[in-house]
Amino acid sequence: MLYAQDYETGALHDLGSHKVTADEITAFGRTYDPQPYHVDEAAGRASAFGGLIASGWNTAAIWMRLYVTTLLPDAAAEGTVEGSPGVDEVRFLEPVRPGDVLSGTCEIIASLPSLSAPDFRIIRNRGRLVNAAGTEVLTLILNARFRSRPKHS
Amino acid sequence: MLYAQDYETGALHDLGSHKVTADEITAFGRTYDPQPYHVDEAAGRASAFGGLIASGWNTAAIWMRLYVTTLLPDAAAEGTVEGSPGVDEVRFLEPVRPGDVLSGTCEIIASLPSLSAPDFRIIRNRGRLVNAAGTEVLTLILNARFRSRPKHS
Repeated sequence: MLYAQDYETGALHDLGSHKVTADEITAFGRTYDPQPYHVDEAAGRASAFGGLIASGWNTAAIWMRLYVTTLLPDAAAEGTVEGSPGVDEVRFLEPVRPGDVLSGTCEIIASLPSLSAPDFRIIRNRGRLVNAAGTEVLTLILNARFRSRPKHS
Repeated sequence: MLYAQDYETGALHDLGSHKVTADEITAFGRTYDPQPYHVDEAAGRASAFGGLIASGWNTAAIWMRLYVTTLLPDAAAEGTVEGSPGVDEVRFLEPVRPGDVLSGTCEIIASLPSLSAPDFRIIRNRGRLVNAAGTEVLTLILNARFRSRPKHS
């Protein structure tokens, strides 16, 4: 089991990659962000983007899936009913298109005591997705609450 | 057609409401945030939350749907290939559970010139979702790019 103290500031974790499809883009778009260029290829072609592009929320959620499936399975990342510490500075830097292969990383940028829960620490994670050309398409900061290593273990 | 100048700082827009279901929570969770309490009712009961709760990304995406379907249909909100100005300070304040009816608002908190695109302005929107008990479950700041009203119209 990994505790807050196991996430060292400066560590960079590889989260693997994910291939985006037109079906994923339009399914997410229809459900959560029905702007024309997220739901319809022809509307995308007529827009400044020249084609279908993923909702920024879809791209952020793709990073989250890579983070959860790669980094969290062995971690003491526990939700608490006081609410989650949230997400900052989500930036959608380049359009994400069907066929793009996005590779994710997570860099630990800070480890702070939790003010509301003394047994926990807040780990600030810098998330990034880059496409196959190496261009950054997304950055964000995820604040996650991890349990501190028990003193007697 | 509504231009950037039509979104006045301080204006508060009602975005309507959305009822969350267990199916929506688990569908989103399986696809984008497979932590146990987002995908499985029994795992949720065994967690600090005492039941299934929505991924914070799901809750944020619900706000986005209300914003897009209510406020954007007549607006000159155009994507540009320079990238989107992004989202700040996403806070998940209370768990969202099956059956919750979430009501959204959007408050215009700033209108700034776009540094990269002189014909556009950046509108900073404070988004909020409250449940039927009136408790805030989500706040965020969405930065959106709107075209300025043409000078000769």
